Amino acid sequence: MLLSEIARRIHGTLHGEDREISGVSTIEEAAAADITFLSNPKYRDMVQFTAAGAIIVGEALDLPIPQILTPTPYLAFARTVEILIPEKTHEPGISPTASVHPSASVDPSATIYPFVCIGEKAFVGQGCVVYPGCVIGDEAEIDESTVLYPNVVVYERCRIGKNCIIHSGAVIGSDGFGFVWDGTRHVKIPQKGIVIIGDHVEIGSNCTIDRAALTSTRIGADVKMDNLVQIGHNVVVGDHSIIVAQSGIAGSSRIGKSVTLAAQSGVGGHITVGDGCVAAARAGVVSDLPAGKIVSGYPAMDHKKWLRVQNVYKDLPELIKRVRDLERRLDALSED
Amino acid sequence: MLLSEIARRIHGTLHGEDREISGVSTIEEAAAADITFLSNPKYRDMVQFTAAGAIIVGEALDLPIPQILTPTPYLAFARTVEILIPEKTHEPGISPTASVHPSASVDPSATIYPFVCIGEKAFVGQGCVVYPGCVIGDEAEIDESTVLYPNVVVYERCRIGKNCIIHSGAVIGSDGFGFVWDGTRHVKIPQKGIVIIGDHVEIGSNCTIDRAALTSTRIGADVKMDNLVQIGHNVVVGDHSIIVAQSGIAGSSRIGKSVTLAAQSGVGGHITVGDGCVAAARAGVVSDLPAGKIVSGYPAMDHKKWLRVQNVYKDLPELIKRVRDLERRLDALSED
Amino acid sequence: MLLSEIARRIHGTLHGEDREISGVSTIEEAAAADITFLSNPKYRDMVQFTAAGAIIVGEALDLPIPQILTPTPYLAFARTVEILIPEKTHEPGISPTASVHPSASVDPSATIYPFVCIGEKAFVGQGCVVYPGCVIGDEAEIDESTVLYPNVVVYERCRIGKNCIIHSGAVIGSDGFGFVWDGTRHVKIPQKGIVIIGDHVEIGSNCTIDRAALTSTRIGADVKMDNLVQIGHNVVVGDHSIIVAQSGIAGSSRIGKSVTLAAQSGVGGHITVGDGCVAAARAGVVSDLPAGKIVSGYPAMDHKKWLRVQNVYKDLPELIKRVRDLERRLDALSED
Repeated sequence: MLLSEIARRIHGTLHGEDREISGVSTIEEAAAADITFLSNPKYRDMVQFTAAGAIIVGEALDLPIPQILTPTPYLAFARTVEILIPEKTHEPGISPTASVHPSASVDPSATIYPFVCIGEKAFVGQGCVVYPGCVIGDEAEIDESTVLYPNVVVYERCRIGKNCIIHSGAVIGSDGFGFVWDGTRHVKIPQKGIVIIGDHVEIGSNCTIDRAALTSTRIGADVKMDNLVQIGHNVVVGDHSIIVAQSGIAGSSRIGKSVTLAAQSGVGGHITVGDGCVAAARAGVVSDLPAGKIVSGYPAMDHKKWLRVQNVYKDLPELIKRVRDLERRLDALSED
Repeated sequence: MLLSEIARRIHGTLHGEDREISGVSTIEEAAAADITFLSNPKYRDMVQFTAAGAIIVGEALDLPIPQILTPTPYLAFARTVEILIPEKTHEPGISPTASVHPSASVDPSATIYPFVCIGEKAFVGQGCVVYPGCVIGDEAEIDESTVLYPNVVVYERCRIGKNCIIHSGAVIGSDGFGFVWDGTRHVKIPQKGIVIIGDHVEIGSNCTIDRAALTSTRIGADVKMDNLVQIGHNVVVGDHSIIVAQSGIAGSSRIGKSVTLAAQSGVGGHITVGDGCVAAARAGVVSDLPAGKIVSGYPAMDHKKWLRVQNVYKDLPELIKRVRDLERRLDALSED
Repeated sequence: MLLSEIARRIHGTLHGEDREISGVSTIEEAAAADITFLSNPKYRDMVQFTAAGAIIVGEALDLPIPQILTPTPYLAFARTVEILIPEKTHEPGISPTASVHPSASVDPSATIYPFVCIGEKAFVGQGCVVYPGCVIGDEAEIDESTVLYPNVVVYERCRIGKNCIIHSGAVIGSDGFGFVWDGTRHVKIPQKGIVIIGDHVEIGSNCTIDRAALTSTRIGADVKMDNLVQIGHNVVVGDHSIIVAQSGIAGSSRIGKSVTLAAQSGVGGHITVGDGCVAAARAGVVSDLPAGKIVSGYPAMDHKKWLRVQNVYKDLPELIKRVRDLERRLDALSED
């Protein structure tokens, strides 16, 4: 594709000569037929060594290679990748080796791969792609243009929105963790609710999202979840929130909109996290957070405070020496 | 169902008028045909606003709605849910699209869904339900009335007890993590043992329980395990223990009976945790614990001590100021 | 098998009478027909009580049972297990209930179990074993003698080396976690790279290894990964490294050779960890580490320093009392 055509499609301005571009790559690995991009200033010094045939940038660089200028180079690059490397297409229809209950409704434009099992009265919408080994429970609903990668499980009655991407091994709707001790053993609290997932949600591989005890566990629109994330029963996650790998949210907590839970973080049960909050990596949130709060540590505290605390913490051996020294000096003074 | 009938079945006492109840819900979301419950005093103030048609309570409330009194409202509610929302029933038999080795023994009352694979000489007992995509290895045994949700894997020779529930994606019996360096590479220690799981055990989705090197990894009766839990090889978990989401137990540790390991906690290798111990969320247990101990933090310490430590920790910047102040005052005094 | 034959095969020296041995077990559980071993000096006192018929040891013990002497008893034992308990053999060929795309290349010596799905132009090499429910994406390559346990997913174009073992539920090649905010929603950065896994790698159950955005996520030869490990996109892990259960490595980090990341540890994004580094259990590495560094804690610091810090940390309530005491004494002095 001509560079000028790419520039046009991503609403950028071409500086330099037009040429044919066939691939995309990183600054380091790009070859002459590739386009690359510069977004993170950390990589600015590397640009001069790139072998790329073109580069997408935020401001013109003093370099001999053609450049596409745009105020949002990373976003423009994402679109360039989509243009140059189109998504795999899938032939619509149900594989003869899939098992679809006669009462299920599968749109003819959907693709159902081998060894998929679709239960009674389940629904799979227009243009969905259900990869091999997925299991869609009775009365579950997968709305249009959603992709389930191999071996995803959606338990009965759960509902997935439009344009979602669910990666392999994710489990949607397993029982919430609820038991009551009857004096001799743990009695299971039946988990009869569901999971409802909004539109444009992406869920990473091997995530687990439990169904509510009675009502619904809800994941808002445009939520993005990394791998191995655990969501307890009755949790509500607001639109646009980001949950990074290996984080967990305990039962009945409410996460606001546009919240970020960084990697390996946790939120306790029955906690409210306000809109726009950020929990840093490893943070463990154990009390409600007002909107916009940034926290770190366990138990989580204000991030700036945590930085100050850590600054003293890492020098505790020094601190105790200073205290010992004070004691000695004071002892000496007192003896005088 | 009549409220009086529910009261009779859960051994409670009906206060107020009898009426027809058809569903169960939370205090907030219940409608007139629903029964709800009050167990956690935190929700007492919300009860006056409920639209529920009846409520299960520990002591009579001054409210106009019919109440079922019972000393154990949460337990009674669990039973009410079972009564009003019966479990899905499964048609016994082996799906024609399952693959069952001719030497395997599957009880005629068990249900084997499509795309299940059952190996040589494996055993599946009375009333078991094996959902689509499960794989039961050679000579593995699944005892009566156990449910394997979709895509569970039980490796060869492992044994699951009666009345267990194993959620999707759980892996029972993968190789323990054992290697020995031979000077040029890691040599695998063959993992030839098994996993033995007791009766009435529930295992959450995507948990991993490794087989022993030579003997058995053992999970006691009535153990309840949340999602994404990791159990190393040769571990023994005592009856009635609770292991919450994303926790891990390293190889050869012995967890006593009725132990609670809260979310994201960990137990190191070759450690003994006594009966009734509690490891709080995020606790990392690195040494043996006597029975009944409650610990927090990493490395885990007595929970009350940890609370005192955290209380100082969070104010470390204050502490260092006080030390600086002392130094200044002492310097001033010394100069005098 | 005769003990003398075992001794010969593991290059050890037999002390004591020759006898027939048929099994292997632990010091505690071995019976008269079993051979056991002593490697960890912790178990030396237990040896006198063993019922084993023979023992592999580093130096001769004053015990009446036959002993095989070898400088590396643990390694010798691993080999003995392989000799006495041979691996399961698999009948080569493709199950009639597997789904293999006509353009895929599967070596006739490979075993493809039921309900395996192999995509367009995928490659499965000599002697590979692909257990039920595995999904191998289009153009993915599984090199010779590699074993995929049930329900492993390898996304399109990813490449697994020779002699690898991938445990159940592991997901190789799901999309890296990359989004850019366009002012109203998160736009997905297409993840068009791959995962390349070297030879002799073992990957635990339910691990997740994301494909690179543009290039490749690379796992070196002889890397051993425990269960539930998360590897972000573009990560590079060097040969012989060990990654223990529930650890995670964020995107674009480079882990050197022979690195150990202990259980529940984490490495942040865009970080370089030098050859031979060790991150202790729960360590959270947030900055580059030079080769050979041993770190603990979060944020990770030098392990020895961390021990000193923890030593003060756990006694913080004492420290604050000492500071209060100093203040009181100084107040008293000042009042004089």
